[in-house]
Amino acid sequence: MSDKIEGRNPVAEALRSGRQIDKLYVKRGEKQGSILPIIRQAKKRGIIVSEVDAAKLNEMSETGSHQGVIALVPPIEYADIEDVFALAEERGEPPFIVILDRINDPHNLGSVIRTANCAGAHGVIISRHDSVSVTATVEKSSAGATAYTPIVRVNNLSNVIDLLKERGVWVTGADAAGDRDLYGADLKGAAAIVIGSEGEGISRLVAEKCDFLVKIPMKGQINSLNASVAAALMIYECARQRNSF
Amino acid sequence: MSDKIEGRNPVAEALRSGRQIDKLYVKRGEKQGSILPIIRQAKKRGIIVSEVDAAKLNEMSETGSHQGVIALVPPIEYADIEDVFALAEERGEPPFIVILDRINDPHNLGSVIRTANCAGAHGVIISRHDSVSVTATVEKSSAGATAYTPIVRVNNLSNVIDLLKERGVWVTGADAAGDRDLYGADLKGAAAIVIGSEGEGISRLVAEKCDFLVKIPMKGQINSLNASVAAALMIYECARQRNSF
Repeated sequence: MSDKIEGRNPVAEALRSGRQIDKLYVKRGEKQGSILPIIRQAKKRGIIVSEVDAAKLNEMSETGSHQGVIALVPPIEYADIEDVFALAEERGEPPFIVILDRINDPHNLGSVIRTANCAGAHGVIISRHDSVSVTATVEKSSAGATAYTPIVRVNNLSNVIDLLKERGVWVTGADAAGDRDLYGADLKGAAAIVIGSEGEGISRLVAEKCDFLVKIPMKGQINSLNASVAAALMIYECARQRNSF
Repeated sequence: MSDKIEGRNPVAEALRSGRQIDKLYVKRGEKQGSILPIIRQAKKRGIIVSEVDAAKLNEMSETGSHQGVIALVPPIEYADIEDVFALAEERGEPPFIVILDRINDPHNLGSVIRTANCAGAHGVIISRHDSVSVTATVEKSSAGATAYTPIVRVNNLSNVIDLLKERGVWVTGADAAGDRDLYGADLKGAAAIVIGSEGEGISRLVAEKCDFLVKIPMKGQINSLNASVAAALMIYECARQRNSF
C-alpha cells in the first residue's frame, strides 16, 4: 500500500528529507522550471521516474493540485512519544509538544504541522479516533513538514496528557472559556499546548486534564479565529517565550 | 448588481451588523437549527425571504458551501483611508492598520480580514490591481468580518504608505530578508504592518517604502509559513505590544 505526495514543494521536501520514494510520476513533456531539480534528484537516488499524461495524474491525484508531479511513498510512519522526548533531548531543549484534539480538516492539520515545524516543536500528537490521519492532502498542506516533525497517533489523548504531566511537561489548552489570556500565561520550560477543532474547541475531558486553559484575546466583533490561525498564535507564543526571540 | 453572502455564520453576521440585504434565499424545507434565527431576524427587518430548491442554491453559489442560505447584498462599500483614522480616533487608540500586498487567494484575504478584526485593527488596505477584491468567498472566509472592518482599496500602495508615514504611522513590512526578528521589533504606537503573498512576499517597491522589515523567526526545516498564518503572527504581535495583553 502506498501514500501519495503531490505538488512540487512537498515532493522536493520529501526528497530533501531522505524519505523513501517508491516511484515518481511526472507530467509528460514537463521539463522546465522547478520540476527539473526534482527529476534530477530522484534519478540520482535511483528512483523510477515515469512520464505520464496529465489525465493520468489528475486521476491519481487526491489533492486536486499535483502541479505535474506525484510521488508514491510508503505510508507515513507515525512516531512514538519517546521519539518526541528523544528529539527534545538531542536538541538540548525542554520538550515542546503540540496536541490536536478533533482536527478533522486535513488542510488545518497540515497547516498546524507546518507551523509546529517552523516554531521548532518536537512533535505533534493526534488522536487515532477523533482526528483525520496524515493523508496526501495533509502532507501537501504541511508544505512537507510531515517528513520532519514526529507525528504521534494515540488512542486516548487523556492518557497521553497524564503521561506528559508525569514527565514534567506542563499542559496548556486553548479554550475560549480560559481563565487567563494567552499573553499572560507562562509557557516557558517543558510545555505541551492543546488545540481543538474550529467549531467545538477542545473536548471537556481533555480540557479537564490541562494544567491551564488560556484564551486568545479578542478585540473585535468577530469572536473566533480560523483553527490553524488560533493554533499558530498559541504555538508561536510558546516559541517566543521559550526562545526569548 | 448584487454580491452574495453565503453560509450561516456570514449571513448571521451580516444581519447582526445591520448591513443592507436585498433578498434572502433559503433552502426549501430547511427550518431547523441555526437557520431559524436567521429567517426570523430577516423577516423582522422586512427582508424578502425566498424558499428555493437546493439545486437553485447550488447554481447561485459562488463558494460551493452555502449551507442552505444565500443573501443578496449591494456590493461591499470600500472605505476611505479617512474612515480608518476616524475609527481609531473614535476608539481613542493610535491607528492600527493592515496592508496587504498582492494577496490573490480569496481564502487568505478573508482569513486575514477576520484576524485583523479579532485583533482590533482599524482597517485593512488592499491594492485595486494586484489583489483579489472582496467576493462572496472572501466574505465567507472572513467569517463576516468584512461587515465590520473597514477595507480600503487603493490604486497604489506606495502612495498610501507615504500618506500614512506623513500622518505619523510607522510602517513595518514582513519580509524573510528582514534585518530583525518580529519579536525584537517595536510595534507599539501608530502602526501599519505590510504582508505580502505566500510565494513572493511583498514587492520590492513596497518593501523599500517600509520603515522596518521584520522576519518571523524559523526554527525548523520548513522555512515558510502559510500566508494567513504569517499575517496572523504579525497582526497579533502588534496587538500584544499595543495592548500589553
